[in-house]
Amino acid sequence: MEQARLEAFSDGVFAVAITLLALDLAVAGPGHDSLATQLGDRWPSYAAYVVSFFTIGITWVNHHTLFKSFAIVDRMLLFLNLTLLMFIVAIPFGTATMAAYLRHGGNDAHLAAAIYAAILEGMAVSFSAIFFWSVRNDRRRHEPLQPDTVRSALVRFGAGMFVYLAAIAIAFVSAPAALVVITVVAVYYVFEHTPTADAQATLK
Amino acid sequence: MEQARLEAFSDGVFAVAITLLALDLAVAGPGHDSLATQLGDRWPSYAAYVVSFFTIGITWVNHHTLFKSFAIVDRMLLFLNLTLLMFIVAIPFGTATMAAYLRHGGNDAHLAAAIYAAILEGMAVSFSAIFFWSVRNDRRRHEPLQPDTVRSALVRFGAGMFVYLAAIAIAFVSAPAALVVITVVAVYYVFEHTPTADAQATLK
Amino acid sequence: MEQARLEAFSDGVFAVAITLLALDLAVAGPGHDSLATQLGDRWPSYAAYVVSFFTIGITWVNHHTLFKSFAIVDRMLLFLNLTLLMFIVAIPFGTATMAAYLRHGGNDAHLAAAIYAAILEGMAVSFSAIFFWSVRNDRRRHEPLQPDTVRSALVRFGAGMFVYLAAIAIAFVSAPAALVVITVVAVYYVFEHTPTADAQATLK
Amino acid sequence: MEQARLEAFSDGVFAVAITLLALDLAVAGPGHDSLATQLGDRWPSYAAYVVSFFTIGITWVNHHTLFKSFAIVDRMLLFLNLTLLMFIVAIPFGTATMAAYLRHGGNDAHLAAAIYAAILEGMAVSFSAIFFWSVRNDRRRHEPLQPDTVRSALVRFGAGMFVYLAAIAIAFVSAPAALVVITVVAVYYVFEHTPTADAQATLK
Repeated sequence: MEQARLEAFSDGVFAVAITLLALDLAVAGPGHDSLATQLGDRWPSYAAYVVSFFTIGITWVNHHTLFKSFAIVDRMLLFLNLTLLMFIVAIPFGTATMAAYLRHGGNDAHLAAAIYAAILEGMAVSFSAIFFWSVRNDRRRHEPLQPDTVRSALVRFGAGMFVYLAAIAIAFVSAPAALVVITVVAVYYVFEHTPTADAQATLK
Repeated sequence: MEQARLEAFSDGVFAVAITLLALDLAVAGPGHDSLATQLGDRWPSYAAYVVSFFTIGITWVNHHTLFKSFAIVDRMLLFLNLTLLMFIVAIPFGTATMAAYLRHGGNDAHLAAAIYAAILEGMAVSFSAIFFWSVRNDRRRHEPLQPDTVRSALVRFGAGMFVYLAAIAIAFVSAPAALVVITVVAVYYVFEHTPTADAQATLK
Repeated sequence: MEQARLEAFSDGVFAVAITLLALDLAVAGPGHDSLATQLGDRWPSYAAYVVSFFTIGITWVNHHTLFKSFAIVDRMLLFLNLTLLMFIVAIPFGTATMAAYLRHGGNDAHLAAAIYAAILEGMAVSFSAIFFWSVRNDRRRHEPLQPDTVRSALVRFGAGMFVYLAAIAIAFVSAPAALVVITVVAVYYVFEHTPTADAQATLK
Repeated sequence: MEQARLEAFSDGVFAVAITLLALDLAVAGPGHDSLATQLGDRWPSYAAYVVSFFTIGITWVNHHTLFKSFAIVDRMLLFLNLTLLMFIVAIPFGTATMAAYLRHGGNDAHLAAAIYAAILEGMAVSFSAIFFWSVRNDRRRHEPLQPDTVRSALVRFGAGMFVYLAAIAIAFVSAPAALVVITVVAVYYVFEHTPTADAQATLK
């Protein structure tokens, strides 16, 4: 029950955040460049919309998968979950800022792409922290994970955090390259189960 | 349970997207044309609000009807559902853009109406893909559909996809005509059950 | 189950609409009049925020009370509920427009207040239509209502619709007076049970 | 059931309000100061985002804890809950206004910080009122609270209300100091159980 309402609140936050991404689709409207030109100029916004939409969507899926393995909810979990949501909610800001500066070109595109990657890094770190919270104490999960599964999860979560960290660094070399890296991560997670899901499957 | 949370998340996205439509109702306010003039000039926004509201609303109803026939949730369904939601969330953008250019007149109204129709086409295609996912494997549904029902659904989904595709083409001839076609589809779906719902009724 | 998801979707729309009211609280910010002056000038926005917040909130309460008496969900109910939600979602627009013109004074304040009242009238009519849908056929309710209860509900719903209609007329004489009438209705509904709730209590 | 839907609606409002905080993260974009300068100038917005995010998040947690101890839902509770939500929904406005004036400096920063603190005070008072509603009559709770627990809750709720009241006063001396006080309250509540939660634990 407690968990049900925690998930309902989180679902609501994910749903609003993913929908707010669409606010950046807007064009300047009539009286500016032709619509085709405006849409063409704004391609980074449209590319970023798709990438961020799937990134939030996949994180929601993984959030869901992870939380259903939890047996308890404590203050620490609530705090970690709020931290995760704080980064999720910042994604539309990161997306819009990155797209605006990518479109405009110039030096600030590097910083903007780095901020976008940093928000995703914050999300990945919070997500991993929730996973680690759950394996620190066996009574926190319906079924304890095998040490092998935990090790494998560690590797994969570590990889995720490392890739977003790399994207921050890459952003200072090439902003579009950072966006490509972030896109690849999103595509990867669409087709790959999370370690937790695998673990669950193994345990079932 | 898994399905319940998938539906809760989808409901949240539908609810936010349908509510964001209202952001385009706003007038410029005092200090511009008289309020009556502003409201009169903005009629395409108000017409489009009603059409998009019912289009999203009916799609939500059909989403609901379809998903309750599903016995399992897998990665592919999650991916297809995210794709559907990505188009749903883009509807307020498509609606506002179409209304702005329809109001302003000129050549760009054609492209704006075509984009609106294209977003709806994307929604229809994603929706159909979810249906096809469900009939590819009998264990995905609580009760397998009869071949006749599937064939009939194919025809009707095909029709829906065709009409929105036609609306894209019509938009390049006449933007208001495309809006009329889209309105007719919305009205039709308010009063007509989806194939799936019929199928369910038949099976019950 | 079907009803649960209909309520979940409606709850989501109510929740987003009620929250969007807050977008009109914003002041112009530094570099304009002093903050105290801005806040003072914007008093109609703050008064209207409270009134609309309770109006949507109370309608949500009544929606909830009404729907839990329903035994079935059919296409007509879905359509009527969508119509109701379409007016709910338009309330932030009506509220902000009314407040902007009330603040600015001039002739357009009348029309703006009338539009606000008209949106609430549309809400009241849709709500009544849902009630009438439910009493047209006994199998639509868990327990049929007594003719007396239906008659009493008719009177009270009629009164609600009449008062908002009156507010539309009053708006053309005095916009603030229309806001006062709408406020009185909100206060009345906070402290008074809906006919339906009374009916339920009687039947229990 | 009744309570479930009340919580679902409240969760929705909390989720939307917490997400709308992110709208104030936006920078002016290309063509203004360098992105680094813009981000640096806007530090009050980023600090306030984190503080308000955790304040709303913790209030949601406490709301959840409190409501699950309730045995009934009546009109008064619905009214008090709407009042609480009205303040929650105003938090993004208070946050953005405070941050804008803090950034800009000048005399109005005092008033802006006082308004932010006043909204939080309104939230704290409404929350306390809900608690007092629940202890006025034993049948309103699943298990009546011991007089000791109620007294202890009184002290702690009183403390909360007093601190936000103090923050209003402090704001007129130093706006940043008021923000620090509000931050301390948020941090305190992250790590401290609410009296209600303690009470529950004692009773279990």
